[in-house]
Amino acid sequence: MKKIINLKENIVNDMLNGYVKAHYDKVKFFEPNKRLIIRKNPKNVSKIPLLIGNGSGHEPIALGWIGEGLLDANVVGDIFSAPSGDLILEGIKLFKSHPGILLLISNHAGDVMNGEMAIELAEDENINAKALIMYDDIASAPKGKENERRGGAGTTFIYKILGALSENSGDLESLIRMGEIVRDNTRTLSVAISPGVSPISGKKIFEIADDEIFIGMGVHGESGYGRQKIDNSRKIVSTMLDKIFDDFSYSNGDILIPFVNGSGATTLMELLIIYNDLEEYLTKYNIKTYKPLVNEYITTQESAGFSISLLKSTEEMRNLWSQKTSAPYFHL
Amino acid sequence: MKKIINLKENIVNDMLNGYVKAHYDKVKFFEPNKRLIIRKNPKNVSKIPLLIGNGSGHEPIALGWIGEGLLDANVVGDIFSAPSGDLILEGIKLFKSHPGILLLISNHAGDVMNGEMAIELAEDENINAKALIMYDDIASAPKGKENERRGGAGTTFIYKILGALSENSGDLESLIRMGEIVRDNTRTLSVAISPGVSPISGKKIFEIADDEIFIGMGVHGESGYGRQKIDNSRKIVSTMLDKIFDDFSYSNGDILIPFVNGSGATTLMELLIIYNDLEEYLTKYNIKTYKPLVNEYITTQESAGFSISLLKSTEEMRNLWSQKTSAPYFHL
Repeated sequence: MKKIINLKENIVNDMLNGYVKAHYDKVKFFEPNKRLIIRKNPKNVSKIPLLIGNGSGHEPIALGWIGEGLLDANVVGDIFSAPSGDLILEGIKLFKSHPGILLLISNHAGDVMNGEMAIELAEDENINAKALIMYDDIASAPKGKENERRGGAGTTFIYKILGALSENSGDLESLIRMGEIVRDNTRTLSVAISPGVSPISGKKIFEIADDEIFIGMGVHGESGYGRQKIDNSRKIVSTMLDKIFDDFSYSNGDILIPFVNGSGATTLMELLIIYNDLEEYLTKYNIKTYKPLVNEYITTQESAGFSISLLKSTEEMRNLWSQKTSAPYFHL
Repeated sequence: MKKIINLKENIVNDMLNGYVKAHYDKVKFFEPNKRLIIRKNPKNVSKIPLLIGNGSGHEPIALGWIGEGLLDANVVGDIFSAPSGDLILEGIKLFKSHPGILLLISNHAGDVMNGEMAIELAEDENINAKALIMYDDIASAPKGKENERRGGAGTTFIYKILGALSENSGDLESLIRMGEIVRDNTRTLSVAISPGVSPISGKKIFEIADDEIFIGMGVHGESGYGRQKIDNSRKIVSTMLDKIFDDFSYSNGDILIPFVNGSGATTLMELLIIYNDLEEYLTKYNIKTYKPLVNEYITTQESAGFSISLLKSTEEMRNLWSQKTSAPYFHL
């Protein structure tokens, strides 16, 4: 395994130490806990803080998104493992003097179980913490069963839009309401091209033939629509968008926010070519776009692949989307 | 070759179309030329514009760095090939009404030849254009022959600092003077870990054994110090910094700006671990750091590897380094 690391058992701690040192002006540990990373200069206690707990190995998400106009804290799990309920509770308790706390949970079994446990424990201590479950990956459950779908790259729209709204003094109820609307108007589909290597086991995360791609695979190799022969960008993008358009209704004049996410080893050159093909597809239907995100944000080590996420946006969402953030690794 | 592209001969144009569509609020083509990308809302004609011509395949550099406080234009060559002298001249002539124009040239044979030809042709037309040759890679020529060294990731310091200075109305002479000082105080060393694939030939860019790394290899596979067995991050970082410290003099109390650049497939997780080890090394010598850059900026397709660049900084450099920029893919 050709990874530049020190001891395997210290990967996450070494990474977090490097992160806090590199971005010392923006983030810090909630000392002495080295798995809770928080904003350095948080706003006053009237703000509703946004937290997320997630497994590491997918950087820059979520630690890179702590900052003004985005997340207030990240509870960091081991590689590809959700943090424990106790650790998430510790993150929630950090903000117990605030009028409310919102825990964002990407819909994966471990994250949901531990996150909901933490919320229950917080309620027992009379802390006003709520959870919002995020899902968007159309390959993981059929139309009509949206709430069984996995959280994919489209959860980014929720992070960013709620981050801006909470910075603008949105209360807990309005954050949850907006989060649900954004979620319900987001669709994501991904393609796996070649596997990354787990830094713990040293093994490939999934297997795929040299002339194949896998449409709809989840970020940890979970099942999706299935394998097919590799094709050119225009055809792959068109296949993916056909599936998304079958799943959700888009109309002439809609304004979408697109997100083309690279999963690790797919070059920016390719992501921009994919984006060009996406724009051509949308133009055929007279659908407009607004400030897309095109880069690597949610990775699985050095996997090659990408996802396309689309948010059917309102003017309020677009304003919140483009509001500035100081997060070290979010850049519109 | 598992790249998501359309026709090979259209790779660069498809990518540039995608880039200009994705960042329509910031950049545009200098129509009808589809290889000249410029800032959308340039400042008035009193500003000294900064241009660079470079081969593509290394994104986000340089197209991603066009914007307020960074570059004014990018003349885009084919994959791994410098743009022609004529094309660079066309870029220069775009700004002929300005009091001066600065062409930044990373020290690689083709870039220098074509860039200097363009400058000569511009002089023939009485345009006040000058070139600054940038070099920093200590593995490519010995101490004492600094001006024979290749341009590496440390050229980033020149781009960013001169971009800010020109935005602040610096004149051509002061830009060149500052560029030379920054260059003379910058050192870079890189490590290649595994090869990327050329999108044109479909072949690996270099060969390296499964248990080896190559210290000092250039971004196109050029020769450097040589191969050695892979080791842990702390030892590799320490070997690299020992070589940089042998080449240049650093003292107790110096404030360095570090840049850890990933070459494509090396994860942010690894880059942050490397940064942590770099900080530990510098701390031993009581050397301070200021706002480092840690991410993928100068890539060679999906190569794995990284470089460490260090700038021994003055207060003026630090102020210019941290000045805001609107470039789509530069984020401090």
